[in-house]
Amino acid sequence: MEKMLVFGHKNPDTDAICSAIAFSELKKAEGAQVEPVRLGEVNSETAFVLAEAGIEAPRLVETVANEVNTVCLVDHNEAQQSADDIAKVTVHSVVDHHRIANFETADPLYYRAEPVGCTATILVKLFHEKEIAIPKVTAQLMVSAIISDTLLFKSPTCTEEDKKAAAELARIADLDLEAYGMKMLRAGADVSTKTVAELLLDAKEFDMGGAKVEIAQINVVDENDVLSRMEEVEPVITKTVADKGLDLYLFVVTNILTNDSIGIAYGEKTQAVEQAYNVTLTDHKAPLLGVVSRKKQVVPVLTEIFTK
Amino acid sequence: MEKMLVFGHKNPDTDAICSAIAFSELKKAEGAQVEPVRLGEVNSETAFVLAEAGIEAPRLVETVANEVNTVCLVDHNEAQQSADDIAKVTVHSVVDHHRIANFETADPLYYRAEPVGCTATILVKLFHEKEIAIPKVTAQLMVSAIISDTLLFKSPTCTEEDKKAAAELARIADLDLEAYGMKMLRAGADVSTKTVAELLLDAKEFDMGGAKVEIAQINVVDENDVLSRMEEVEPVITKTVADKGLDLYLFVVTNILTNDSIGIAYGEKTQAVEQAYNVTLTDHKAPLLGVVSRKKQVVPVLTEIFTK
Repeated sequence: MEKMLVFGHKNPDTDAICSAIAFSELKKAEGAQVEPVRLGEVNSETAFVLAEAGIEAPRLVETVANEVNTVCLVDHNEAQQSADDIAKVTVHSVVDHHRIANFETADPLYYRAEPVGCTATILVKLFHEKEIAIPKVTAQLMVSAIISDTLLFKSPTCTEEDKKAAAELARIADLDLEAYGMKMLRAGADVSTKTVAELLLDAKEFDMGGAKVEIAQINVVDENDVLSRMEEVEPVITKTVADKGLDLYLFVVTNILTNDSIGIAYGEKTQAVEQAYNVTLTDHKAPLLGVVSRKKQVVPVLTEIFTK
Repeated sequence: MEKMLVFGHKNPDTDAICSAIAFSELKKAEGAQVEPVRLGEVNSETAFVLAEAGIEAPRLVETVANEVNTVCLVDHNEAQQSADDIAKVTVHSVVDHHRIANFETADPLYYRAEPVGCTATILVKLFHEKEIAIPKVTAQLMVSAIISDTLLFKSPTCTEEDKKAAAELARIADLDLEAYGMKMLRAGADVSTKTVAELLLDAKEFDMGGAKVEIAQINVVDENDVLSRMEEVEPVITKTVADKGLDLYLFVVTNILTNDSIGIAYGEKTQAVEQAYNVTLTDHKAPLLGVVSRKKQVVPVLTEIFTK
């Protein structure tokens, strides 16, 4: 079988990077010729994870059809979150834990999605089903992805299956979940050295009933670290809104210690945020109490508003 | 958890009916409250299968949102092949072996697709993964679905996994695969008592790069049994083309003994069939040698033509 590239979404987070590596390990063990790659810069949390595991980041690519005919997607399926030329290649497999939208194939494929907190949790099952042992370094990457996506099991997206998978992976990787987890999350939440572009790095674009919506999220230990920099951040967001013709740009600043967020909204349709959370935006900002999950507490809520 | 309905596609075939029953058995064993239903008449092959297994056909429904909030889909995902009001309910799970298209959810879900010959083959894996024993009657229904979808392992869609699953199911159901399989296929291929509507029962609609295409298929032991009735069939097809505004209606008459088909094409875009198979339609008809699989040998080939 010819070579395939394996990658997560644009603006990759720890799950997008680590699950690409882990799925590649699985496919290699099955005899496939695969290479994990990434569609964007490595964020500071993922950089910490890779450094701790002692491995290099996957190669950065912008397009894929120039290299291969066939790809595997992890941690995403929506075309606008994928490689720019995704329509030019055949998708062989998808392993994901998001809603399915803007995804279409001409042929049958392998698609494995489960409503769990992290792609890596599904990958643990695949390793088991195929009776392939999880290498220690791979286990460390996978457990990091679960910690990242579930905010150390605090997110409402976290399921019992994620906890069980994380416990097993921590055993294989010989890690103290709580100690390693907090160190890792803090590495990602240290925004002091981040540029504005880096603050907004974890952004995903969605089509919601025809509305173009971009939702960025960042984890912090003190939301003022971001709020104090809004003078720099605002023009970047408003430029993105104008350049992409967005109806709404929502920047979710999530405090990993209190598990609350501040929503910062721009665009013609900021009212959708007020409706969705029954809040009033003051100077574009509103507290989103208890909201930590873009996938579970932001995307479906806004989708409902926009498709009503 | 509240009750869910489980169903296969409109114009159900043996896999659509039997996999709905089998997936319901699996979910019931897990403690869910589910009912298998069907979105259309039972064809003669499936009627044979149900009679042999000694069970009733699932209840016929036209809409689902009037009964439940949540559904599970088997053997399909495309909205136009599903319940008319599918957009009004939440899809909890999908188990399928087709391409993914025209399918979108607001929330994460369980989605299990594999490029195998039959949904029931994937269900065998799910029973194993969940360590639930397959009841004898369920095994008989599932192996019937595999025989149907793979034309007793002759279709190019048939994989080693389908053969392996069928062998296991035949053991549980205590069936002679070859003898039962031919009897079952012949029951479905007996077109002598079929009305024109029944000849065209196994029809599926597709969106191919904006073109509206409907593809019907029937199995026969002698294609002349259908060709001799084209005077009755033609007006029904042309009416469907007009009523639905189809660009192409392709009726595939498949001989289960020779494993060849005749393609019968109507609509503005019949040229797509000529291009796809390098044939010339004579009086709307052309031989499609070696073509037995709509999914593998018709849909992707026509999709490519229409999206070029």
